[in-house]
Amino acid sequence: MANLVYRRQLTVEWGHCDPAGIVFNSRFFEFFDWSSWLLFETALGVRPADLGTTYGILGIPLVDASARFLKPAKFNDVVDITSEVSEFRRSSFEIKHRISIDGELAVEGSETRVWAAQDPNDPVKLKTKPIPVAVIERFRA
Amino acid sequence: MANLVYRRQLTVEWGHCDPAGIVFNSRFFEFFDWSSWLLFETALGVRPADLGTTYGILGIPLVDASARFLKPAKFNDVVDITSEVSEFRRSSFEIKHRISIDGELAVEGSETRVWAAQDPNDPVKLKTKPIPVAVIERFRA
Amino acid sequence: MANLVYRRQLTVEWGHCDPAGIVFNSRFFEFFDWSSWLLFETALGVRPADLGTTYGILGIPLVDASARFLKPAKFNDVVDITSEVSEFRRSSFEIKHRISIDGELAVEGSETRVWAAQDPNDPVKLKTKPIPVAVIERFRA
Amino acid sequence: MANLVYRRQLTVEWGHCDPAGIVFNSRFFEFFDWSSWLLFETALGVRPADLGTTYGILGIPLVDASARFLKPAKFNDVVDITSEVSEFRRSSFEIKHRISIDGELAVEGSETRVWAAQDPNDPVKLKTKPIPVAVIERFRA
Repeated sequence: MANLVYRRQLTVEWGHCDPAGIVFNSRFFEFFDWSSWLLFETALGVRPADLGTTYGILGIPLVDASARFLKPAKFNDVVDITSEVSEFRRSSFEIKHRISIDGELAVEGSETRVWAAQDPNDPVKLKTKPIPVAVIERFRA
Repeated sequence: MANLVYRRQLTVEWGHCDPAGIVFNSRFFEFFDWSSWLLFETALGVRPADLGTTYGILGIPLVDASARFLKPAKFNDVVDITSEVSEFRRSSFEIKHRISIDGELAVEGSETRVWAAQDPNDPVKLKTKPIPVAVIERFRA
Repeated sequence: MANLVYRRQLTVEWGHCDPAGIVFNSRFFEFFDWSSWLLFETALGVRPADLGTTYGILGIPLVDASARFLKPAKFNDVVDITSEVSEFRRSSFEIKHRISIDGELAVEGSETRVWAAQDPNDPVKLKTKPIPVAVIERFRA
Repeated sequence: MANLVYRRQLTVEWGHCDPAGIVFNSRFFEFFDWSSWLLFETALGVRPADLGTTYGILGIPLVDASARFLKPAKFNDVVDITSEVSEFRRSSFEIKHRISIDGELAVEGSETRVWAAQDPNDPVKLKTKPIPVAVIERFRA
């Protein structure tokens, strides 16, 4: 079985771009973050704002993010973003993002996130929890 | 007596600028917001993060913001920002921000904010409260 | 004849929101800016990136921006944005933006922009130009 | 000889934080980017805006960026950022960023950038160039 892939398209805005006329790097991490939330919404049928209460977690905080910039994304370019969980581990998982422009890969991104709840011994801390099997199964297409 | 004026200086970063090589408009509203917090810290001696608990409020939410752009701020420009409360009303107040570059006024900004606590009749709502006189007095230089 | 109104919808992202869980004020000015570009694209049939070369201008720079915040926009809210040119003057114009959530007005925004070309006497400066009548006519529905 | 290390300090602003009350991930990439420019200014004595003309390049574009998030940075935290070029290769280099709060490492970042000029055969493209030895030497403390 294949991974569920979430796809969306967006147009590069004036405010996304730097003086070189191309998307400033931090914006890609905004795009990745929101695509991750939407991937989860698509897989689980749960709105981002309800993810925590539905699963008894505080969220899916990011512990690692990276991007490789192969081609610039210019003002007005239409970019395609695909996102999928490439690996589930016990309490963490890897999301791969691919941004293409006119069918050519422009940016590859990766996020590592954890399934995290409040630490019962210290309420201001987070504690990772095992990801339920029923959750993992929803990410297969 | 004069108004207390908070001053800070910042250098225009690459990431602040748009393809025209000048600061993108939304960034000025970030600059204003943070200068308002720092003005309050300077006047009251209370860190932004402690403002709510110190005064029994939820915060000083923005109800109106505006900016007039007179001259562009370019990459690497050193900008001077001055901020002052120009008027206190019963439960709201006006903050004036002025951004200058090389001594010339570049942007004029204005924020209207309210002194707001939790609504005792509806905990998810805010309710404005009278601003304590002791607070107002701290904004005179 | 009525003004051409450009409408779009967006969902409030995690990265748009501040610690109060609501859209941080500067984000609304990003939303307004991009809606203005899209309004022009809709009216004129010209991509934002081609606006300058099509009309012999450098752009439509912002000289004034303001927003009135009536209700907060929360994480995951679906917001409707409508934008229209409310007034054309000789070389400047006014864009009104209205953001609604569940049919209730949440934010009112206003931008003043100018129709600007390179100053023939000083290439690093901008000079406003009269807005062509043929342009203005396209903003009637 | 040791690497030249550029240090700066900043306070976490309200607008940097997400609904969890901690710095939203994309902001760290803004911090890294600007620290890289300032590291170059410190090493070379050249303002960011003059880097291109001084060295006959278009810039030092980013080809890879990553961050590891070890501890959250909360509203009002004072963060220390140190940045250094950890490795120079023929036409690319690696910048390591470390963000600490109260002396504890909170975020580790890495950027790969290239020394890039206009491609003489295709003016809309970039071409990497060998980094001058005189430049590299300035990054030793």
